[in-house]
Amino acid sequence: MRDIVRAGILGASGYTGADLVRLLSTHTGVSIDLMTANSHAGKPMAEVYPHLGGLDLPDLVKWEDADWSNLDVVFCGLPHGTTQDIIATLPDKVKVVDLSADFRLRNPETYAEWYGHEHRAPHLQDSAVYGLSELNREDIHRARLVACPGCYPTAVLLALVPLAQRRAIRSEDLIVDAKSGATGAGRAVKEATLFCEVAEGLHPYSVSRHRHSPEIEQEVGAAFGTAVNVNFTPHLVPMNRGELVTCYVKLEEGIKVSDLRAALDEQYRDEPFVRVLPEGAVPATRHVRGSNFCLIGVFADRIPGRAIVIATIDNLVKGSSGQAIQNMNLMFGLPESMGLEQQPLFP
Amino acid sequence: MRDIVRAGILGASGYTGADLVRLLSTHTGVSIDLMTANSHAGKPMAEVYPHLGGLDLPDLVKWEDADWSNLDVVFCGLPHGTTQDIIATLPDKVKVVDLSADFRLRNPETYAEWYGHEHRAPHLQDSAVYGLSELNREDIHRARLVACPGCYPTAVLLALVPLAQRRAIRSEDLIVDAKSGATGAGRAVKEATLFCEVAEGLHPYSVSRHRHSPEIEQEVGAAFGTAVNVNFTPHLVPMNRGELVTCYVKLEEGIKVSDLRAALDEQYRDEPFVRVLPEGAVPATRHVRGSNFCLIGVFADRIPGRAIVIATIDNLVKGSSGQAIQNMNLMFGLPESMGLEQQPLFP
Amino acid sequence: MRDIVRAGILGASGYTGADLVRLLSTHTGVSIDLMTANSHAGKPMAEVYPHLGGLDLPDLVKWEDADWSNLDVVFCGLPHGTTQDIIATLPDKVKVVDLSADFRLRNPETYAEWYGHEHRAPHLQDSAVYGLSELNREDIHRARLVACPGCYPTAVLLALVPLAQRRAIRSEDLIVDAKSGATGAGRAVKEATLFCEVAEGLHPYSVSRHRHSPEIEQEVGAAFGTAVNVNFTPHLVPMNRGELVTCYVKLEEGIKVSDLRAALDEQYRDEPFVRVLPEGAVPATRHVRGSNFCLIGVFADRIPGRAIVIATIDNLVKGSSGQAIQNMNLMFGLPESMGLEQQPLFP
Amino acid sequence: MRDIVRAGILGASGYTGADLVRLLSTHTGVSIDLMTANSHAGKPMAEVYPHLGGLDLPDLVKWEDADWSNLDVVFCGLPHGTTQDIIATLPDKVKVVDLSADFRLRNPETYAEWYGHEHRAPHLQDSAVYGLSELNREDIHRARLVACPGCYPTAVLLALVPLAQRRAIRSEDLIVDAKSGATGAGRAVKEATLFCEVAEGLHPYSVSRHRHSPEIEQEVGAAFGTAVNVNFTPHLVPMNRGELVTCYVKLEEGIKVSDLRAALDEQYRDEPFVRVLPEGAVPATRHVRGSNFCLIGVFADRIPGRAIVIATIDNLVKGSSGQAIQNMNLMFGLPESMGLEQQPLFP
Repeated sequence: MRDIVRAGILGASGYTGADLVRLLSTHTGVSIDLMTANSHAGKPMAEVYPHLGGLDLPDLVKWEDADWSNLDVVFCGLPHGTTQDIIATLPDKVKVVDLSADFRLRNPETYAEWYGHEHRAPHLQDSAVYGLSELNREDIHRARLVACPGCYPTAVLLALVPLAQRRAIRSEDLIVDAKSGATGAGRAVKEATLFCEVAEGLHPYSVSRHRHSPEIEQEVGAAFGTAVNVNFTPHLVPMNRGELVTCYVKLEEGIKVSDLRAALDEQYRDEPFVRVLPEGAVPATRHVRGSNFCLIGVFADRIPGRAIVIATIDNLVKGSSGQAIQNMNLMFGLPESMGLEQQPLFP
Repeated sequence: MRDIVRAGILGASGYTGADLVRLLSTHTGVSIDLMTANSHAGKPMAEVYPHLGGLDLPDLVKWEDADWSNLDVVFCGLPHGTTQDIIATLPDKVKVVDLSADFRLRNPETYAEWYGHEHRAPHLQDSAVYGLSELNREDIHRARLVACPGCYPTAVLLALVPLAQRRAIRSEDLIVDAKSGATGAGRAVKEATLFCEVAEGLHPYSVSRHRHSPEIEQEVGAAFGTAVNVNFTPHLVPMNRGELVTCYVKLEEGIKVSDLRAALDEQYRDEPFVRVLPEGAVPATRHVRGSNFCLIGVFADRIPGRAIVIATIDNLVKGSSGQAIQNMNLMFGLPESMGLEQQPLFP
Repeated sequence: MRDIVRAGILGASGYTGADLVRLLSTHTGVSIDLMTANSHAGKPMAEVYPHLGGLDLPDLVKWEDADWSNLDVVFCGLPHGTTQDIIATLPDKVKVVDLSADFRLRNPETYAEWYGHEHRAPHLQDSAVYGLSELNREDIHRARLVACPGCYPTAVLLALVPLAQRRAIRSEDLIVDAKSGATGAGRAVKEATLFCEVAEGLHPYSVSRHRHSPEIEQEVGAAFGTAVNVNFTPHLVPMNRGELVTCYVKLEEGIKVSDLRAALDEQYRDEPFVRVLPEGAVPATRHVRGSNFCLIGVFADRIPGRAIVIATIDNLVKGSSGQAIQNMNLMFGLPESMGLEQQPLFP
Repeated sequence: MRDIVRAGILGASGYTGADLVRLLSTHTGVSIDLMTANSHAGKPMAEVYPHLGGLDLPDLVKWEDADWSNLDVVFCGLPHGTTQDIIATLPDKVKVVDLSADFRLRNPETYAEWYGHEHRAPHLQDSAVYGLSELNREDIHRARLVACPGCYPTAVLLALVPLAQRRAIRSEDLIVDAKSGATGAGRAVKEATLFCEVAEGLHPYSVSRHRHSPEIEQEVGAAFGTAVNVNFTPHLVPMNRGELVTCYVKLEEGIKVSDLRAALDEQYRDEPFVRVLPEGAVPATRHVRGSNFCLIGVFADRIPGRAIVIATIDNLVKGSSGQAIQNMNLMFGLPESMGLEQQPLFP
């Protein structure tokens, strides 16, 4: 490692790659020395993302043509399934911040069940650290390979894990109604994400079969110390960025709603990016847009013995590229907020 | 009653009033003979709603100046609280389709608790019929005063009442995560509904204290034959029209998810406006936009013993003006679909 | 021709096809007896367009499998270039309302220049009638093949042709700044029309080389009796439906701005679908959404001797399916507004 | 002046004030020491703008209660008309960056004509410098009072002034068709800017009478050295941020379209914030969202002897708060890009 961390971005042509560039461009401790995008190899990034035309960036290359010798870290924004093959070929000295799903699930059978094929780098899977920065800071600091959480799990786990760990809520009947903007679907071209199919309307999708379910269950289960089933029902909202999860939970015997807020306050009091809102204040996606913040609100339920915990993040930032940079900062001993100081863009 | 039902619209300057006009303009059995809007009295409707400029309509007047003598029915789209005073002054021969909340709650104490004042026409409250067309058809047919359900209750009750009546679901732990477009907030001028405060973002509101809660609990409770608490958590979505409720329910002992769909199929098989979707098909607000349809989907939950029932309507049509017209058709013995044949507008 | 016109829709899986079905479903003089969509052959329309699930429609078939023998008319919503081949094979007794660009341009060389290939049915091209309903009513009434105008030309020509015919404006320096919603791009899957590439932003496209330019120039030129060059600069706006053209024109010697409004008033006074707005009233796309209306406003320019003429339509209705039905009504001697009585959907 | 410039923000509760805070929060040479907002006095900024809740900011006070003694500069985001009264009372040592319209027009009669009252600080009006950073850098550097241009004029003048100064275009028949997002209307509560009145639609407004017209004419006229009339026709687009101006110009004798691009290239080659796009590349508002960039494209017109010059900015940044900070940097001898390094947020 040099003074300046030399970074590569694999799969730079997705929205996640573009947001990595946006954020890293103001990070004074990192340089972008490599960018790959096989379908756009040979092009300048500004041709693929004109909004980045003001930056001095390396041209896009195929990952097969990449020179890894001068890199300290790669951010890996490749599609699920291809990541494990490519990461397995990287020199050991290159640290890896993986934004794909390939190394999130610890159980190879669960991986195979949800992703439809055997994992092809199980030894790396073992060593991968789950990169939920606030809740796994020490392990991330020491890791070579960090598997960044999915966008939905990031919001859900920041809301629920501290409550599960403290046994403030019960492990059964956990219901998560989730809402996301269209960037969550990526830049891949599909009829379902055309403007006219998303604007002026709302619908649920992947009901009871979204791939973030096993990831949520793995981490919530670990917090409870027992296997759990979690309802996770995502909805597509006509907006670009933003994710909001409305979690319906049962209070553990003797626990009050105010205890939940107190627990979260205690957990996040000194965190730079997680804010527990005062009573009555409502999390809104637009209050985190473009930033690495997570806002959490706690509300009483009309049903006695229940509460509602609501969390919101920008799915491309705290849910992806921002948290990846936060993890990289941890891995290299840099100040955790470096490059992530931007305030939300509102309106 | 003459061949043509002579209708008045009280409070015609709200979005609900405008949508009544839009729909009634193609209803061959009704004429619009009176339109009141006290803050716009003296103006043509086309000045308040230029999109209706192609119609021949009476000018707006103050309700105090209205001539009721030639009317058969009034649609009442006045603000909550003022409706009860005005309706109390109408001649008995004029039937009333009320779109406000004034006559929805049967219990005067519940009304007072949620609306902040004693009800001022309790005798009318007694005689009012709850206007959920599909589930209360006979009473509506005989009624003089029909209290149209709130937009959210319409969707929730169409989804849950048949299941509650058949004891297919349990009465506890009923959770309703609701989403609505901005027309639900009406045309009143507020910072919270400015374009820049709603676009490109999502947030919950009125968590655990929305006025549609007691209405939902009243009707779901009646279906179960017991008092119930229902979680109802609405969210504001950046779209004009549309409402979608995601209901998380517990199956009664011995009941399977397929039984829920069968129950709803049985209930709605011959209904012109309610469609139970085939397995796997997802309700989307854009598939009902501008129409009087309600779509309902049933899904298994990852948590054993639970199911997800999702319903969607256009909040201004089936959730308000459309259902009002459907009720008027019932009240006057007209074909129930008259004036409501328009297909959804997509995209 | 029978009492009920038996219609087929070729290329029913585009947004235009879906809107034809929506509108025809309330047309009491037409039945939909055939629907083709080669890439979806065998499916019910409701699978391709769930919002039409309430209708009783024939399943989609390949056009090669169509039985033309029982049809009176086909609406042809096929892609440009393929239409001419298919129409050439239809029985003579079947009338054709073509929504593609294949028969709009009278000059085969202009067609070849803008569409990149020789026209393959030049004899039909000769006999085709340009289907701008209001300005070409007699010819449409007698035609077998009507070429419906492009969406942009419809708005531009309704605004400018009466002024050109009356020599109220000059033929040089005609500038048309146009704005359209994303339905204009159709349902074809392209990165450029993904939600995230269209929402929350605006940009011009096809500057100085949009295919509607030669069509506009052909018809404006015919109105002036001389060849003209017209600037036409379209912009993509983050909305589904709607088109608005802002036309910057020079007044002819001795002509005042009020003369323009008077000319348009005279032209459209008795038209059911074109409304010239009073002085100061501003056309807005949302005032025509979902309807067959065209609104036109006339404004003075700060530059002496100039004026601004602004027209708006719903690009899928008056700009496509609605005008097609209007033309079919003319072709079959039906009341011109039949099936097009729906008022705009606002909000 | 100290090492850190101590800044006050007058009228901090508008969108412009909020965006000043967002941008200044990453500016390492400025501290925010005062924030006024009379209607919200006593509140923390985070209550008015929750997205800024992560910052340590002074509470809002009434401007009458402000202590000016420790300030080096004030940003003035007050409504037009009130600014001139308040600025007149400030100590001379406090520099002023005014974002209102009060000091943009040099001619008091023009001011009175367009703003409806005599100017009340004409001596300040004389000394005010027009703050179009790129074109007036030297004067801004020396100024005490800088009048930041309106958002529309910023885009128009960056596009046209270099062409006018070089006599590459003609001074007559200048037509500017402008489009803006809804933040341009501010946070004031009006029916016209409710979500439902802006979403899913487009319309022109203030046709031929927008207050940015005299400002554009003043500066374009100065560039030509002669009085000019400029057509300026703004349209409201359903998006939060972004402004795009499509300028239709006549080429001066002997000038080619490529000469326009060359002139703009020459003018802006070394500018950090203005980028002239290569031939064929299209400016899009989303490519500047949240940033201080201006993108300019030049296109041939189909009408010989004409060209189209298109510029885009974020109306709240380069069109307001960003340019204000750029000007403050110039006034205090700081690096011009300080605090403005953020890349655009896309999607």
